[in-house]
Amino acid sequence: MTEITSPQNPRLQALRRLHTRRERPPTQSFLAEGEDLIDAAREAGRPPLEGFRLAGSRLGPEGFHDVAPKTLAAVSGLGSGARVIAVYEQRWGAPAGPLCLYLHGVGDPGNVGTVVRSAHAFGASCVALGPGCADPHSPKAVRASMGSIFAVALARVGAIDELPGRLVALAPGAAEPLRGPGAGDRAGAPVTLLVGAEREGLPAEILARCDHVARIPIASDSLNAAMAATVALYELTRRPSRVPA
Amino acid sequence: MTEITSPQNPRLQALRRLHTRRERPPTQSFLAEGEDLIDAAREAGRPPLEGFRLAGSRLGPEGFHDVAPKTLAAVSGLGSGARVIAVYEQRWGAPAGPLCLYLHGVGDPGNVGTVVRSAHAFGASCVALGPGCADPHSPKAVRASMGSIFAVALARVGAIDELPGRLVALAPGAAEPLRGPGAGDRAGAPVTLLVGAEREGLPAEILARCDHVARIPIASDSLNAAMAATVALYELTRRPSRVPA
Repeated sequence: MTEITSPQNPRLQALRRLHTRRERPPTQSFLAEGEDLIDAAREAGRPPLEGFRLAGSRLGPEGFHDVAPKTLAAVSGLGSGARVIAVYEQRWGAPAGPLCLYLHGVGDPGNVGTVVRSAHAFGASCVALGPGCADPHSPKAVRASMGSIFAVALARVGAIDELPGRLVALAPGAAEPLRGPGAGDRAGAPVTLLVGAEREGLPAEILARCDHVARIPIASDSLNAAMAATVALYELTRRPSRVPA
Repeated sequence: MTEITSPQNPRLQALRRLHTRRERPPTQSFLAEGEDLIDAAREAGRPPLEGFRLAGSRLGPEGFHDVAPKTLAAVSGLGSGARVIAVYEQRWGAPAGPLCLYLHGVGDPGNVGTVVRSAHAFGASCVALGPGCADPHSPKAVRASMGSIFAVALARVGAIDELPGRLVALAPGAAEPLRGPGAGDRAGAPVTLLVGAEREGLPAEILARCDHVARIPIASDSLNAAMAATVALYELTRRPSRVPA
């Protein structure tokens, strides 16, 4: 294939637009930069719609476009420039159990990406995004997910009655600490864990409609949304049996 | 006090130098920008060595220098500019129990700051920094700590025999999952939790000298160092008693 050298190349112009939210509407595409993310997509069985690589690098699958170094650097969102950039289809589904994680008003893309990574790490079935959440397909969120964006099911949720199973909300002021399923609980019964923004938390009208409201026991004021979600996913997937350390 | 208008003002020149690592040697000072961090310092009982505020804003304690808007913006490390910037003394001590967290080779300042925040949240007694760790007093680490930098005891450690108590290392490939103190364990016996860098983990010679090596049970490849440390601190400070959720 011919090497792309012009920054005015229409494919590269289209690629550049994916950096901004306006050009990334739901059900459309998003981009991933760098070998690690491209590898994660391949491992998750997600084929690229289109790819661009440093001319001569032979990175990525057959069919990726060779691009001159300066031209590729000009469309990269990374400070150091990426050697490979690919475009993927966004995939959205319905929120699903057995362990769904719902975020509300988490506006920082780094936090949303970190939560996606934690959801993958602890085997959550879905990350459902409510109002006010950052776009999980923004370049910053995709990078923070470390490739987990390709492996985790995503849902967009307008009202919490769309969420599956028992609704367990995190709130710093709750009376009870969060506890994973005890020996008496029905194994595998679906649960949605609800997490709000760092300062505001979940709105009162959502808390009022949850089956259980719990806190993570901490000594200081706060954990950020990503850390709270990570600890809660750990607790909810923790095996009840105790092995002495 | 007279308003500072010149960027060549020697106090501001000294302040600007604190943004870079070379000018922030151990036992010297560091800077914090923004009302939230200045408030966190005050709450932790850490007096500023010197402070600068937007002229007319009356932010910060008596004695802060009033600075013209453009001049203050020019010394701020924040994109949006800070309305108040203060300089604080670095405080370093010896690593101490009952729950010490040791980081090894964690080079990202955002991760180090997040770990400091988690250490504060879960009441760890100390964050001990080994070779290859980012400076916890860099502006990025200070911001990521969300003010916990003022509340958590810090230590610098050259060899792990300086660490207190039983040494518990996190390693992704360990056979046993990490478990907090069981009912039969001596309550309050000092422990140091050791966490390595995201990809490299802890060096083999350190793992070999630990009393226990454990993993956090996860489904996917990895957690970053800050998330792993956060979950481990949660597990180690978790109450053994189980309350059905």
